[in-house]
Amino acid sequence: MQLTQQYRCFEGEQRIYTLDSQVLKTKTKLGVFLPPQALLGQPCPALFYLAGLTCTEETFSIKAHAQRLAAQLGLIMITPDTSPRGEQVAEGDSWDIGQGAGFYINATQTPWAEHYQMESFIADELYDWVNQNLPIQTQKIGIMGHSMGGHGALTLAFKYPEKFKSVSAFAPICAPSQCPWGEKAFSQYLGTEQSDWKKHDATALIQAKGAVFKEILIDQGLQDQFYAQLNPALFKQVCAQVGQSLTLREHVGYDHGYYFIQSFIDEHLQFHIVQLEH
Amino acid sequence: MQLTQQYRCFEGEQRIYTLDSQVLKTKTKLGVFLPPQALLGQPCPALFYLAGLTCTEETFSIKAHAQRLAAQLGLIMITPDTSPRGEQVAEGDSWDIGQGAGFYINATQTPWAEHYQMESFIADELYDWVNQNLPIQTQKIGIMGHSMGGHGALTLAFKYPEKFKSVSAFAPICAPSQCPWGEKAFSQYLGTEQSDWKKHDATALIQAKGAVFKEILIDQGLQDQFYAQLNPALFKQVCAQVGQSLTLREHVGYDHGYYFIQSFIDEHLQFHIVQLEH
Repeated sequence: MQLTQQYRCFEGEQRIYTLDSQVLKTKTKLGVFLPPQALLGQPCPALFYLAGLTCTEETFSIKAHAQRLAAQLGLIMITPDTSPRGEQVAEGDSWDIGQGAGFYINATQTPWAEHYQMESFIADELYDWVNQNLPIQTQKIGIMGHSMGGHGALTLAFKYPEKFKSVSAFAPICAPSQCPWGEKAFSQYLGTEQSDWKKHDATALIQAKGAVFKEILIDQGLQDQFYAQLNPALFKQVCAQVGQSLTLREHVGYDHGYYFIQSFIDEHLQFHIVQLEH
Repeated sequence: MQLTQQYRCFEGEQRIYTLDSQVLKTKTKLGVFLPPQALLGQPCPALFYLAGLTCTEETFSIKAHAQRLAAQLGLIMITPDTSPRGEQVAEGDSWDIGQGAGFYINATQTPWAEHYQMESFIADELYDWVNQNLPIQTQKIGIMGHSMGGHGALTLAFKYPEKFKSVSAFAPICAPSQCPWGEKAFSQYLGTEQSDWKKHDATALIQAKGAVFKEILIDQGLQDQFYAQLNPALFKQVCAQVGQSLTLREHVGYDHGYYFIQSFIDEHLQFHIVQLEH
């Protein structure tokens, strides 16, 4: 582990670490925002943010505009990269598969299985690393994400509710088994057996597991250029069926990008703080 | 003029325009944030932001995190590119000269003079364009900038106080005649006659013109990696000599980048609103 970049920010620190990941079998970068309280050594609640296709560990810290309120709330932000990377890591033939497109699952198929173990990396290796190395209140860790990372946040929360106590998303891929992005990624990473896909599909997972969280918050832009990939209505329907409380806010005029995210990021941080503190 | 990108943001709109500039003799891009009040057609105060070396019309809108408060305050943000660009425009041999490094002056020397007329572009052509095309309260326009753009903001404010009613800067190049960046740019753009340089040097300008503004706000990080290029102490000394009120805030731990800027951007917006409204 190496602290490779650090910037003073709202009396806290925006950091980039480089980790030598055993799970990913490659070096990987990690963004961390430490609020001033954490710099003083006070244990703080923490929030994982999983980014979308083509993004990196830096996208959130530059574009989401969360540090101001995270500093006020005393919230640690943890922003991993979206896939393993490196010369020895399979690349993929386009922006929606391979590097930058890990989908937060453990691949079982060649050539991906060797490095693409993002689920285990996030939920085990990185989760343990941040708890051992940052002043985190271990019972107050939430998870959120955007697009592919919204899929990641919802699925990891339902797979590991003992680890993630609150969950929210911006424009998540709610049913990857039923959209082109997910069909491409799942068939390449997991193979063609559709029953394997269901374990990593938020809509199918909630249908199988039932209500787990007190509340889920999702924000969705109605001018989202990728709306057809996201299926929020399917997710809403399943939440209603199983009694999982969901606040799905639909916003006229907003698209899929970070100008949308920055507009509502404060409310997500506040949502998590309320969920984690109560 | 073409509106080439628009994004809903805090119920306002982040826009990118492409202008066919007569002054720059090339197309140039322009970032504009319109707060919700402006979208409703209400005249609003406006603030020019001039970016630093290597930046573009988009840097501010992505990295400075100003839209939240600009939307609340009803403040239009105008963010031009940092130089003329295009295949026919002289490029320069490094990142601190030529494209991305226009220094907000009118070049007189070959090969720069043909396109590098950033002072006239900002203070005349663009100034007129925004007043004609955006719902701006023409008596309530301020200017701010960062680094090279801080130099630009301070010098344009003192050259055109009838146009810019308030001025602030982050880590400005306060005395370009006396630092390597400025010496390189001024000798190439203006020639070797040092008396010409003084007209475009904030410290020299204030010495010549005396106090003009009720107050100037400058924020400076004390871990700024380019501190030796900036000379805030010279500027402070000259302001004191001529009776120009200056608030120079020095911040322990902060560097030259946008994590510094985002930490204090709200206070600049508030400063300008107070200056413009009173």
